Amino acid sequence: MGLFSRDIKTMHDLFAHQLEDIYYAEIQMMRALPQMADKATDGQLKQNLLLHRDETKAQLRRLEHVFDALGINMRAIDCPAIEGIIEEAEDVVAEVADTSVLDAALISAAQAAEHYEIARYGSLIAWARQLGRADIAGLLQKTLDEEKIADQMLTSLAMGKLNLRAAG
Amino acid sequence: MGLFSRDIKTMHDLFAHQLEDIYYAEIQMMRALPQMADKATDGQLKQNLLLHRDETKAQLRRLEHVFDALGINMRAIDCPAIEGIIEEAEDVVAEVADTSVLDAALISAAQAAEHYEIARYGSLIAWARQLGRADIAGLLQKTLDEEKIADQMLTSLAMGKLNLRAAG
Repeated sequence: MGLFSRDIKTMHDLFAHQLEDIYYAEIQMMRALPQMADKATDGQLKQNLLLHRDETKAQLRRLEHVFDALGINMRAIDCPAIEGIIEEAEDVVAEVADTSVLDAALISAAQAAEHYEIARYGSLIAWARQLGRADIAGLLQKTLDEEKIADQMLTSLAMGKLNLRAAG
Repeated sequence: MGLFSRDIKTMHDLFAHQLEDIYYAEIQMMRALPQMADKATDGQLKQNLLLHRDETKAQLRRLEHVFDALGINMRAIDCPAIEGIIEEAEDVVAEVADTSVLDAALISAAQAAEHYEIARYGSLIAWARQLGRADIAGLLQKTLDEEKIADQMLTSLAMGKLNLRAAG
């Protein structure tokens, strides 16, 4: 993207831009999730984060299919939002002394990342439909559904066990 | 927060930390929303963003009540996540040449911010309940409901009119 040019001229360009952004975000999460799992003390939370790392791997493959289907080069562009979310997670985790409070903080950090992705996939699906690409919308819908389930699983974990322990 | 100390020792500390984070995020959104409204070309979108700026003002007052209710000093701490989300919004908006594509990009940017807030308020409410502060959970629930409605209104606007125009 040029400093003095306006490179997004059509909805297709906007879609491609956001696709490159979420591709970068998913790559970052592939790296962040195992680090978060490593910090987690609760076994179920650890497992949950690693499971989502595996899902993220499949979601990356799905994004690569979308690049292909659109006939555009696969590319990741800097995504300051996910970088900020991960930076914030690292900051807060470094500040926590108690292990069960740490688990609560990790869940919250993972949910911030999930919600970023939920917002981005939501836009991409709406735009794909408007562009007449129901095939791409369908593919991305699978990922959106997974992100929503991952978010709900983290909520259940937080409500059911970890917050109680952390508050105790 | 000290560089070499771990200042979050209890759930209460974690709650306070996240409260300071979302307080900062809402202050940033108070500044960003009118700027986004200013860029928007669709009248309904412009109005929608300004309405949410007014809601954000009330949400800030609500957060100040929570600081009070907890007996802690009101403070905003840097929130790299919201900074990243706003930076990304500014970047993409600067790249867009077409006005209806710009409106679609603005909606998507606003929804990324909404979802960040939805994730953060969700954690805060769960933690307030676990800390036995149903009063605070109830207060924050009002904000969470508003954020979810704001997100849905943006989706309706995108699906109903703007994306169609942008794709045309």
